Amino acid sequence: MRNLTLLTDLYQLTMGQGYFAEGRHEQIAAFDIFFRPNHLITYSVAAGMEQAAEYLEGLSFDSGDIAYLRSLGIFTEEFLAYLGNLRFTGDVDSVKEGEIVFPYEPILTVKAPMIEAQLVETALLTFVNHQTLIASKSAKICAAAGGGVMEFGLRRAQGPDAGIYGARAAIIGGCVGTSNVYAGKLFNVPVSGTMAHSWVMNFPSELEAFRAYARSFPDGCLLLVDTYDTLKSGVPNAIKVFGELRAAGHEPKGIRLDSGDLAYLSKEARKMLDEAGYPNAIICASGDLDENSVRSLKEQGAKIDSWGIGTKLITSADMPALGGVYKLAAVFEDGREIPKIKLSDTTEKITNPGMKDVFRIYDKKTDKAVADLITRAGETVDEGKPLELFHPVETWKRMTVENYRVRNIREPLIRNGKRVQKSRPLSEIHAAFAAEYARFWEEYTRLDLPHIYKVDLSPALCSLKDEMVRHYKKGE
Amino acid sequence: MRNLTLLTDLYQLTMGQGYFAEGRHEQIAAFDIFFRPNHLITYSVAAGMEQAAEYLEGLSFDSGDIAYLRSLGIFTEEFLAYLGNLRFTGDVDSVKEGEIVFPYEPILTVKAPMIEAQLVETALLTFVNHQTLIASKSAKICAAAGGGVMEFGLRRAQGPDAGIYGARAAIIGGCVGTSNVYAGKLFNVPVSGTMAHSWVMNFPSELEAFRAYARSFPDGCLLLVDTYDTLKSGVPNAIKVFGELRAAGHEPKGIRLDSGDLAYLSKEARKMLDEAGYPNAIICASGDLDENSVRSLKEQGAKIDSWGIGTKLITSADMPALGGVYKLAAVFEDGREIPKIKLSDTTEKITNPGMKDVFRIYDKKTDKAVADLITRAGETVDEGKPLELFHPVETWKRMTVENYRVRNIREPLIRNGKRVQKSRPLSEIHAAFAAEYARFWEEYTRLDLPHIYKVDLSPALCSLKDEMVRHYKKGE
Repeated sequence: MRNLTLLTDLYQLTMGQGYFAEGRHEQIAAFDIFFRPNHLITYSVAAGMEQAAEYLEGLSFDSGDIAYLRSLGIFTEEFLAYLGNLRFTGDVDSVKEGEIVFPYEPILTVKAPMIEAQLVETALLTFVNHQTLIASKSAKICAAAGGGVMEFGLRRAQGPDAGIYGARAAIIGGCVGTSNVYAGKLFNVPVSGTMAHSWVMNFPSELEAFRAYARSFPDGCLLLVDTYDTLKSGVPNAIKVFGELRAAGHEPKGIRLDSGDLAYLSKEARKMLDEAGYPNAIICASGDLDENSVRSLKEQGAKIDSWGIGTKLITSADMPALGGVYKLAAVFEDGREIPKIKLSDTTEKITNPGMKDVFRIYDKKTDKAVADLITRAGETVDEGKPLELFHPVETWKRMTVENYRVRNIREPLIRNGKRVQKSRPLSEIHAAFAAEYARFWEEYTRLDLPHIYKVDLSPALCSLKDEMVRHYKKGE
Repeated sequence: MRNLTLLTDLYQLTMGQGYFAEGRHEQIAAFDIFFRPNHLITYSVAAGMEQAAEYLEGLSFDSGDIAYLRSLGIFTEEFLAYLGNLRFTGDVDSVKEGEIVFPYEPILTVKAPMIEAQLVETALLTFVNHQTLIASKSAKICAAAGGGVMEFGLRRAQGPDAGIYGARAAIIGGCVGTSNVYAGKLFNVPVSGTMAHSWVMNFPSELEAFRAYARSFPDGCLLLVDTYDTLKSGVPNAIKVFGELRAAGHEPKGIRLDSGDLAYLSKEARKMLDEAGYPNAIICASGDLDENSVRSLKEQGAKIDSWGIGTKLITSADMPALGGVYKLAAVFEDGREIPKIKLSDTTEKITNPGMKDVFRIYDKKTDKAVADLITRAGETVDEGKPLELFHPVETWKRMTVENYRVRNIREPLIRNGKRVQKSRPLSEIHAAFAAEYARFWEEYTRLDLPHIYKVDLSPALCSLKDEMVRHYKKGE
């Protein structure tokens, strides 16, 4: 990984110098990353914590960085010397990657000397916002497709990292592979791809192009059939070459459609392949798809086994930023927590003060998730007793849960600057997501008008928040 | 720069092995990057060529890359050995960064052995699509603001590169600085930023927070005034601290508004600052802005001198991908050009065949751009003769130009794998863009219903295209 210590907003460093000058830079502070609700994301799939942890462990300004900061002419030598020795020494609690998360939940909390906690804000948000966004988009697309989705978006990604870490997040969300070879190597995930239209155009005929490809890749041969005319030329030529392959003892893989009416063409191509004796040849479709077009194609009975999804996945085209924020939750004086709150005239924008935990409550009979509960840190939930939940804003909305189990969805990620959680293969992260996804009623995850999953506050957290709001409002 | 040789789609490598096996891998081929029209982009600002050139010069699979490719089990040892020695040996012609470009224009052309030209497609598109997108968005926002725009989007960028190279592109399009310190160092561009709400919240009072900041940064002091109540508390406290600064011989810089009704608040704050004797104190505004909200604020008479633009710039939120493509234009046999065309049932999707040049035609009297003309390579335009232009699809739309000058907007970027154009500072690239922008009537660049700038084809190119279309259609 590159040294990304300078990957921060300048104001983190000017504030750093200010805290340093005031002797406040080593006061312990805690900041939460969370995001607010929006109409497109009902559930999100947490990702980016792996890169966040790598970044924090490697945090260190090199001499070139310090020389650059000196050249800006706004920092004191004392402060620059301090920065030169600065490492991340704090603690981080976080949900694991692949965890299903909801608005307002502190998905990552940094507790560290103020100057460190402030410095790392920008990069942590960059990692977590980006990968959580793409993992969530991928999850929606993969749910619509019912599997078999490949990530094909590198050429439309917002720079190399967007392609590389976007592919990573797409795999977490459910993609079974990527076209991105760099990502394939870096994350040890399946890569896929066969030919472009230019291959077909480069031979005197489509048939010759297919034969040439089959010579090089007799096994797993997948042919792109829409360069000239899918049904009149592409599929018949593919079937001809499949016959030649089979005669030579190789079983073909299938065909890819990249344009035209994918519903009609896939149904016709399916018939042609079946009639020719290739019921196992798959049909792969690509071309500006997203969860809505995938669902529509399935509703039309399209015979598509495998999906190549590019631009709209790798950019999360209908919502290209998650908008996660990093807000001060508490400072500590002599080890004592002093909760902090950010007020706003908009109720939803008032932060939840203090150190917190997040519990997921499951119905023991169905093993389905019932609600999440944000508590003050250290609160316990006694599974033996009925649990009353209420809406954090519309507090008259209440329900009582019995026969449930709870799980704290956050875990220590870093202690005293060192990782305490091993990095996991993406297959394991995706499997954890898939297992948890199965614990959610589809009413919460469907694309149209999903039911909003409950994220409530414990009575103790609610009281603290009420008190603090009243205290500040009185002071106005 | 990292070694990004593996940053490609797998199919480039499978096709590469296919061409290698067929003995076609060293056939010279030419591919154009261009993009198609869409409702949001009428003109674009080319960018990303610098990273494209760096990448091409450094192209080289390392032993780890080859070992990874071997592990996929689909490549022959002969081909892997060939890849191990592969470098980019071709030529690239390109518009310079900062050039104003239009749909269908070949903004970058690679002429190289087929295997090289194919391999580099994905990464070149990634660089050029991303940076051209953000430079274009930045140009629109900066035009709406009339200057003083700073790029503040790193935390919402799609990964580190999207933040870093997005900041670069934003500067090309007109931003005067960025909050991104990493980008500031890498590209030697101004960085800006002072304080976040958390700074203000971390002191017992707003006034104490402002005073502490002023102690550390007595010169150029810019205070964030919307943490509690902008007009009742923030601006009065800022004025108090400005007075203390001035008494100590320091002139304050101004204030920043980050929420609320920016039109109303900026007008009221302006009055308060003026009345208190700070007519030169600037007002900086930020908060989910883009070209439309900036324009609206200006129409409402907002008194904003400086703009911090984040999410919607760094992600190009209303259109997060440019959709540039890379299409085969020609192959060469014994040095002879064989033009290639990609057909489509959609007229606009038929490519322009062969090697091409792009001329911009300027009216000599006004020095304004009249139209662009795509020609076959090597065609010349005789400025002494009237020039008849006609619409490439609706050919009855014609006009004759006299008293004009022409400029070929493309230049050699790479020859035989080596750069022949020096890299330029971003300030120079932006200045070139700004000078050219001034040569466009605002009818072409306005936000609402812009007039579509003419991009015509020369008669020779038109004839070639017609012939080729007719030839292929006859063959069906």
